[in-house]
Amino acid sequence: MTSTDTLTSGTRTFRAVHQTARPQGMPTAEHFAFVEEPLPAVEPGSALVENLLLSVDPYMREAMDSVWELNAPLEGRAVGRVVESRDPALAVGDLVFHRKGWRTHALVSTAEGARALPHHEGVPLSAWLGLLGGTGLSAYVGLTRVAGVRPGDTVFISAAAGGVGSTAGQLARLLGAGRVIGSAGSAAKVAHLVDVLGFDAAFDYHDGPVAEQLAKAAPDGIDVYLDNVGGDHLEAAIASMRPHGRIAWCGAVAQYNSAEPPAAPRNLYDIVEKSIRLEGFLVREHGDAQAEWEEFLVPHIAAGRVVRDETVVEGFDGVVEAFLGMLAGRNTGKMLVRTAAA
Amino acid sequence: MTSTDTLTSGTRTFRAVHQTARPQGMPTAEHFAFVEEPLPAVEPGSALVENLLLSVDPYMREAMDSVWELNAPLEGRAVGRVVESRDPALAVGDLVFHRKGWRTHALVSTAEGARALPHHEGVPLSAWLGLLGGTGLSAYVGLTRVAGVRPGDTVFISAAAGGVGSTAGQLARLLGAGRVIGSAGSAAKVAHLVDVLGFDAAFDYHDGPVAEQLAKAAPDGIDVYLDNVGGDHLEAAIASMRPHGRIAWCGAVAQYNSAEPPAAPRNLYDIVEKSIRLEGFLVREHGDAQAEWEEFLVPHIAAGRVVRDETVVEGFDGVVEAFLGMLAGRNTGKMLVRTAAA
Repeated sequence: MTSTDTLTSGTRTFRAVHQTARPQGMPTAEHFAFVEEPLPAVEPGSALVENLLLSVDPYMREAMDSVWELNAPLEGRAVGRVVESRDPALAVGDLVFHRKGWRTHALVSTAEGARALPHHEGVPLSAWLGLLGGTGLSAYVGLTRVAGVRPGDTVFISAAAGGVGSTAGQLARLLGAGRVIGSAGSAAKVAHLVDVLGFDAAFDYHDGPVAEQLAKAAPDGIDVYLDNVGGDHLEAAIASMRPHGRIAWCGAVAQYNSAEPPAAPRNLYDIVEKSIRLEGFLVREHGDAQAEWEEFLVPHIAAGRVVRDETVVEGFDGVVEAFLGMLAGRNTGKMLVRTAAA
Repeated sequence: MTSTDTLTSGTRTFRAVHQTARPQGMPTAEHFAFVEEPLPAVEPGSALVENLLLSVDPYMREAMDSVWELNAPLEGRAVGRVVESRDPALAVGDLVFHRKGWRTHALVSTAEGARALPHHEGVPLSAWLGLLGGTGLSAYVGLTRVAGVRPGDTVFISAAAGGVGSTAGQLARLLGAGRVIGSAGSAAKVAHLVDVLGFDAAFDYHDGPVAEQLAKAAPDGIDVYLDNVGGDHLEAAIASMRPHGRIAWCGAVAQYNSAEPPAAPRNLYDIVEKSIRLEGFLVREHGDAQAEWEEFLVPHIAAGRVVRDETVVEGFDGVVEAFLGMLAGRNTGKMLVRTAAA
């Protein structure tokens, strides 16, 4: 029996997206190709999964510059269902989190980090790629381990309507923040932050200098900044920061698509004057925080205390469009692609 | 009996330096004036000291811009001997650390932070203004509390022949650093760092781009940078930094005299890529580390394991020249002024 015989769809091939060229600036659909390939055999220790949900994330823009091999399958977080298994830790029908996204089917193995997902009442599958996935973990690590949010803190979050930001705003509140402020790129997103996600204040960074808008939203200054953006947002945060403020820097969406590095903050020396801590982090180095994060968040999700902010594109054909749309800010919350019904 | 009757010199006046104008760029002797004033009466709770040693420090350049009042006595660390006392905690003859420098005599009180100095065999008076004073404490706080130097770390120190730097280089070694690298502004200072202070490598920042020289001195990268300088030194340190490196930023000598802020590091985003921590600190907020620092360092000084790197200008008349010389880098180690024999 070959692996493909077990596929309910009957196909003996699978579809994947390859990157075909390195972008200069903003990538386009031209930098990708949909390819169809024969399904590989399921070797001992591995399992074949049909992917159900794929994650597209800001860090992938950087991966396009050098990490991702051209004309080869791409990496990305995904959730799939096991359709054939020779991995003793995975049973047919199991729902599995793994890193072989950007394709309809994948060979995975628990030895390489694939993980059968636990069932929690009230926790939908998509949460494992958003709130409970690397996106949510970024917010958790940034606000707890790196910035050390304390009760009463005023917390500012850039790209606040994005995956990390929308989780971080809600998490800051759960951690006892006194005031939570977000910036986003449209009036609709700003309204969403305040009306749906419970931010105390939010502004559209197109409406005027970030420093002025932040100073107005946080007249008494800020204690913590979760930076997804860099550039003028970082400069504004430094300007508004109270003594002993902490900045957790987890990525600079604004920078990924520009050939030139963004202007560094002109007020960087305020870091000395105000005893500020500016610390970068990569969520992939904090996998050991995942269990703690799940333990913290699952009860909040199950009790309906957390808004699961997602934009879901339907169908594998939409994955490149979803990725480019996420880079262009056309998502609210975590951007996902549903490739098959759960 | 008035206070002045007790002065061995017989004078009823004292001399002080005032700042008379705000400098644009590098200050000159024109910004200061020597004034002679009657000695004030010794009120209950205060004591009159004759100053023996005065400290001039880089932070004073910043104080000249706004902190220091014009045409008034200046602030600065000093060590003096009590010549008359109505403070029960100070006896005539006591050696006292206080903050009323820039003058020959001062009224001090323990209630306002003056401190009778303990006697430790083998620890000279000047150590209380350098190694054991705010200068040494800056090095200690920067390398321990802020940067967290660990055994085996490669540590880079800018302005390494200055007061903080020369202490920090030796302290890094005492903390178990694997490799200690310094930058300074002349060939003589570079030789001093390696030959006298035990740095593993040093370079003159005039000899070529700092980034290139640092990369050559630290081919495997650095783990810790104690920044006294900012600008291209900070950019070079970020470039050479290993993942999870730590930067303790305690001042920017290069910036104090320029009207424009220095160019911020163009590679600031590497802070994310390499999970770097950049943290500013003000030593005045870490007074609670003083006892710990003395306990650590006094045995090392007494045993002759620490080079007490000092440039001492003789006589109160030299205080302005000493300050300007320190700003121009004409000192090696801590810059002091001896105003009277101990």
